[in-house]
Amino acid sequence: MRVVALAGGVGGAKLVDGLARCVSPDRLTVIVNTGDDFRHMGLYIAPDLDTVCYTLAGMANPETGWGREGETWTVMSELARLGGPTWFRLGDRDLATHLERTRRLQEGESLSQIVSAFCRAWGIMVKVLPMSDDPVATIVITRQDEELGFQDYFVAQRCEPEVKAFRFEGVSTARPAPGVLDALSEANLVIICPSNPWVSIGPILAVPGIREMISRKPVVAVSPLIGGQALKGPAAKMFREMGWQPSPLAVAHYYSGLLQGLVIDVSDIEWAEEIRQLGIIPEITDIVMHNVQDRVRLAKEVMAFGRKIVETLTL
Amino acid sequence: MRVVALAGGVGGAKLVDGLARCVSPDRLTVIVNTGDDFRHMGLYIAPDLDTVCYTLAGMANPETGWGREGETWTVMSELARLGGPTWFRLGDRDLATHLERTRRLQEGESLSQIVSAFCRAWGIMVKVLPMSDDPVATIVITRQDEELGFQDYFVAQRCEPEVKAFRFEGVSTARPAPGVLDALSEANLVIICPSNPWVSIGPILAVPGIREMISRKPVVAVSPLIGGQALKGPAAKMFREMGWQPSPLAVAHYYSGLLQGLVIDVSDIEWAEEIRQLGIIPEITDIVMHNVQDRVRLAKEVMAFGRKIVETLTL
Repeated sequence: MRVVALAGGVGGAKLVDGLARCVSPDRLTVIVNTGDDFRHMGLYIAPDLDTVCYTLAGMANPETGWGREGETWTVMSELARLGGPTWFRLGDRDLATHLERTRRLQEGESLSQIVSAFCRAWGIMVKVLPMSDDPVATIVITRQDEELGFQDYFVAQRCEPEVKAFRFEGVSTARPAPGVLDALSEANLVIICPSNPWVSIGPILAVPGIREMISRKPVVAVSPLIGGQALKGPAAKMFREMGWQPSPLAVAHYYSGLLQGLVIDVSDIEWAEEIRQLGIIPEITDIVMHNVQDRVRLAKEVMAFGRKIVETLTL
Repeated sequence: MRVVALAGGVGGAKLVDGLARCVSPDRLTVIVNTGDDFRHMGLYIAPDLDTVCYTLAGMANPETGWGREGETWTVMSELARLGGPTWFRLGDRDLATHLERTRRLQEGESLSQIVSAFCRAWGIMVKVLPMSDDPVATIVITRQDEELGFQDYFVAQRCEPEVKAFRFEGVSTARPAPGVLDALSEANLVIICPSNPWVSIGPILAVPGIREMISRKPVVAVSPLIGGQALKGPAAKMFREMGWQPSPLAVAHYYSGLLQGLVIDVSDIEWAEEIRQLGIIPEITDIVMHNVQDRVRLAKEVMAFGRKIVETLTL
C-alpha cells in the first residue's frame, strides 16, 4: 500500500516517524507545510520541514518540540551581546541547516532539491517533499484586522492575538512541488497527521491541485485535539476563536468532504457518534505519543484503520 | 598628540592593541582595510575589521591570528555534514558577528555605524573606522592574468598563485568612511602598522582623498618584513613576485613620498643606511610582538619615534 502523509510540526512529525518505522520507505511520502517558512537575518527558515526531518533523523530536541537535540547556543549568546534579535531562537546546529539552505537557494536550487539533499545527508530514507517550491506565507488576521506574519504571531507574540481568519499569501499561484501530485496520484491512502488544521494542513490543502487530488483518495486523519486541547500549539485556541468548540468533531467538520476516517483519543469517545453521523468513521485509541513506542503503535493502528477503510471502499 | 593608525590584519591589530594601551582612547583612531571584505553564504564578512576589533576587545584567537578565542565549531561541523562549503572557516562566535553585521546592513545601517555599535558592545574605547562604507574589493591578478577575489586567493588557494598586479574594485568611486578624513586632518601623527602593504595598506591609501591627506602629515611605518620574511601572510612572496627583494628597503620604496620614518627590526640593520638615503629615518628595534608586553613596548617606541619626527619637522 502506497501512503502519503500530510504533516506540519511536532505532532505530525511524531506520527510520520512512527509511519517511517513501519512502512517501507519507498512506499511512504511526506508532504510538509511550508506556510510557516520565513526569512530571518537573511536566512531562509523552514520550521515544519526541519521539525519533520530532524524527527525522522532522530536529531530532534524531545524537550522543546523544535530544534536539535544536544543543541548549543554559542551564536545566539554572542548575538545577544551585539544587541541582535533573539526572539527567534537559532541554535548552533540548527543554524547550519538555515545557512546551507539559504546558500543553495541563492545558487538556484529549489527547496525540494535541497530537502532531498539534506535527507540524504541525514540518512532519511522516506521521501520528504515541501508542499511547494514556490513561496507561500501564512498570514494570521487578528480580531483587530491586523495582519501578522506567522512567526510574528507564533513566536514573537506567543499566539496571544485573537484570530479572525487566515490567508496563505502566494498560494493561488503556487505549484505543488515536483513529486507531490505524482505521489498523491499513486497513493492508496492519504494520512492527515495530527497537525494544526488551520495553519499546518490548511496551507497544504490550499495549494492548487493538492486538495482535488486528495479528494479522490481514501483519507484518514488523526485528531490534533484531545479533550478539547492541543498537546502543543494554538490549534484549540484557533478553533475557539474561529467559532468552533475545540473537539474531534470540529476537526471532522474542518476536513469534511475529504475524510473517510478520523482517529480520536479514548478521552473523546463522547464525540464518536456525531462524527459517524457526518459519514466519517471514528477510530478510538490512545493517540498521545509520549515516546517512540507510542509513535510506532499509533502508526500501526492508523495503517490498519486505513487498510480497513481502503478495503471497505473497494468492496 | 592625536594619532591615526592604518591597519590590516594580525600584525596591524597587534600594534593597534599596543597603541590602545598607551594612547588615550580619544586621541587614537584606527582606519582599517575593507578590501578583503566579501560575501560568503549570504554573510558580509570583514576579516580585517574583525581581527582588529577582536584583538582590541581581547577576544582574538592567539593561535590562529584570526577568529575568536575559545571558539567552537558546531555550525561548521553540521555544515560539513550537509555538504556545505567549509573552505572558509566560520566559528560559532565569529558567525554571530557576520549574521548581525549582515542583518544591520540589510536594514540600511552603514558599515561604520555597525563597527561603532559593535565596538560599544565589546567595550572597545578607541575609534575604529572602516576605510570606506562603500564596497571595495581587492582583486589579485595572477601571472596567468587570472583575476582572483582576495579570499579565493588567500584562503581557498593558500596564496599559491603567482601575483602580477592588484586591483581594488570600486575604489575610484569609494568615499572615505565618515570620520576618516576628519581624524586624518586632526592627526599629529599617522602610523602605518606592520600590515601587508600590497593588500592591507594599499587599499586604504587608494581610497580617494586618504593618501592626499596622509601626505600632509608626519608618517611613520613599522616594517611588516623581518629578515626578508613576513611573520604571517604573503607579503614577502608578493614583494618577490612584484619584482622587489623583500626587505624593509622595499617597504620604504613602497611608501616613498609618504614616510618620514620606518621602524625596522634589529635583524635588518643592514638596510638602515639605504633607507636613510631615501630620506626616511630608520628606527631600529625588536619589532616582533610575541605577547601583549611586546605590543606595548613597540607601541611606546613607535610613539616616541613619531614624537621625535614630529618635533624635527616642527623645528
